Order: sequence, then C-alpha cells, then structure tokens
Amino acid sequence: MQPLPLSRAFTLIEPGPVVLVTTHDGARANIMTITWTMVRGFNAEFALTTGPWNHSWHALKGTGECVLTIPTADMIDTVVGIGMCSGADTDKFARFGLTPLAARHVRAPLIQECLANIECRVEEIVGRLNLVLLQGVAAHIDLDRPDTRLLHAVGDGTFTADGERFDRREAMRAKLPEGL
Amino acid sequence: MQPLPLSRAFTLIEPGPVVLVTTHDGARANIMTITWTMVRGFNAEFALTTGPWNHSWHALKGTGECVLTIPTADMIDTVVGIGMCSGADTDKFARFGLTPLAARHVRAPLIQECLANIECRVEEIVGRLNLVLLQGVAAHIDLDRPDTRLLHAVGDGTFTADGERFDRREAMRAKLPEGL
Repeated sequence: MQPLPLSRAFTLIEPGPVVLVTTHDGARANIMTITWTMVRGFNAEFALTTGPWNHSWHALKGTGECVLTIPTADMIDTVVGIGMCSGADTDKFARFGLTPLAARHVRAPLIQECLANIECRVEEIVGRLNLVLLQGVAAHIDLDRPDTRLLHAVGDGTFTADGERFDRREAMRAKLPEGL
Repeated sequence: MQPLPLSRAFTLIEPGPVVLVTTHDGARANIMTITWTMVRGFNAEFALTTGPWNHSWHALKGTGECVLTIPTADMIDTVVGIGMCSGADTDKFARFGLTPLAARHVRAPLIQECLANIECRVEEIVGRLNLVLLQGVAAHIDLDRPDTRLLHAVGDGTFTADGERFDRREAMRAKLPEGL
C-alpha cells in the first residue's frame, strides 16, 4: 500500500464502486459491504446511508471511525459473502482470508487485499435520515495488482466491472480541481 | 420509453452512473451532469449533493421537482459537454440535440435519448450539507438501444463504461427485496 494524496480520495468513490467498510468496536474488527455511498466534496468528504440494521453501525456510531476499502472485480465472491453474513457471529477477516493492516489515524483496520483504503472519521450522523457523514483523513492505494477494475452493484444481485475507459481530461480541464 | 416499476428504480442509481438531471424553472428546461448521487432506500429514495453553484439548483429548489436521467457510454461527449456549459446562457437540449419528452408527474422533461428516466419530487433540502433528498414517483426505461452500458466518472476527467457482468442472484437471494 502506497500513500494516496487525500485530494485524490474522492476519485475512488465517485465512480460508484461497491465498498467494504471496516470498523473496530474495541474488541474486534468487522467488515460490511455497502453500495449506498456518495462523494460530498473534493476534499475526501463522503456520505453513507446505513443504520442500526447493520451490525457495523454500532461500532461506527460508538467509535466515530471507519475505513472505506475498495475491492476489485476479482474479489466479487468475497464482497458478496461479506454482505451475506453478520459480524455478530462471524469473524469476517478469518472467514474470508483477509489481512487486517494497522491504519495510521483510526483503530479500524485497512484490508491488505483491497485496491485502496480511506481512513475516515465520522463528522456527523443524521439519525432520522440514516445518514453518516465522513471525513477522510488518510488514503492508501496498491496499484501493483493484476486486477484494478472496480465492481459496481446493480442492486438485484448482479454486478458489473469497469470496462472500456475514456479520457476526457482536456475537455474538462476548466472544471477539474487543480493538480488532479 | 416503457414504464419501469418504481421498485426497480434504485437499480439504475446503485451502480453509481453519471446522471443527467433535468429541471424546468417555469420558463424553460435545463440539464446538469452530476455524479454525487446516492441510493437511500429500496423505494426510489435518492440523495444528491449540489448547491447554489449550479444553475439548476435554483429550479430544483424553486419547483421541488426534477428528473434523474441515465445516459449510456455512447453519450460520453454529450455528458461532458452538458457539464462544461451553463443553463444560464445555453439551451442545452438544443445545443446537444436532445429531445425533451413530457413527464407524467413533474414539469421537468424526460430525455428521450437516455436509457432511463426517474421522475422525482424533492422531499427535503438540507442546505448546510448541500444535500437534496429525492423521492422517485415514476420511472421509464428504453432497453431497445444499441448501447446500454452505464458510464462512471472517476472525477479526474476519465470515465469507465460497464464491462464484464456477474450474476450472484442465487447467493444473494436472502437479502434481495422480494420480486426484484
């Protein structure tokens, strides 16, 4: 994992990938699969929709910390499996053979097998909207891997991976944040 | 455009595509390109991050209505072009050769050339968070087109189109909304 400038962290969430969220409740680490995410600004500001129906919710609310990790398309069965069991009775790192790495600013771990990890602090929880507002504080990326395709959930049990790529940087230059 | 059950509308936004948002301010229709979107529930509940820096914001706030339209990968230069000019001085339907179609419940138009259109009412605006909460009220889809690949913005001027598809419906059956 190499450091990724925080100013680029939004480019990991903006394409709408499936995200694995790690938490640590003080006793142990957990992981949830989530696709209800949104970028809120160019400075690593994110939103999630989640709530008490997820076991991870309690650690997220209690500690005010999490890591957004970005799996790749070759991890699809891990992603689905994590979403289909609960941290209430499962050690998901052990069950899915994932390696927790110490984060720099939060107790929630990075996932070594993922493409990227964004350490986050909870900025605010809007309970009546099931809305969690996050502020990224550090980001890490591993570009030295065979598959860097993000995975997108359709929501009906099907998924797509990133396919054809298009470069429109020149056409968009006037609206891109400087240095991106 | 055929009707799409509202219960499936979230499957258009969940994969994280670039979205074109139409509005109508009473005088004329406008379009903005947006990628800061989120699904908030299985019943066509969505969120956007936007604000007064977008010309469309004023119509969205003033009328409480919009249409989320989903362009496909073959529309990339239209998508980029719409994002790079302003409705303040441009008729974007005319400039980009798009056809407005009357919606059923809102004055904002559908875009005929898009894969899908979701008519929405503004449920709430949380101004201090630049957050717009939408409730879908009708959805339409056109599956009879050469390219149905969604387009994902990376945020740095590059984009990806949907590539390889994976079906994990059986593995996820227990967690999918009924009938999906």
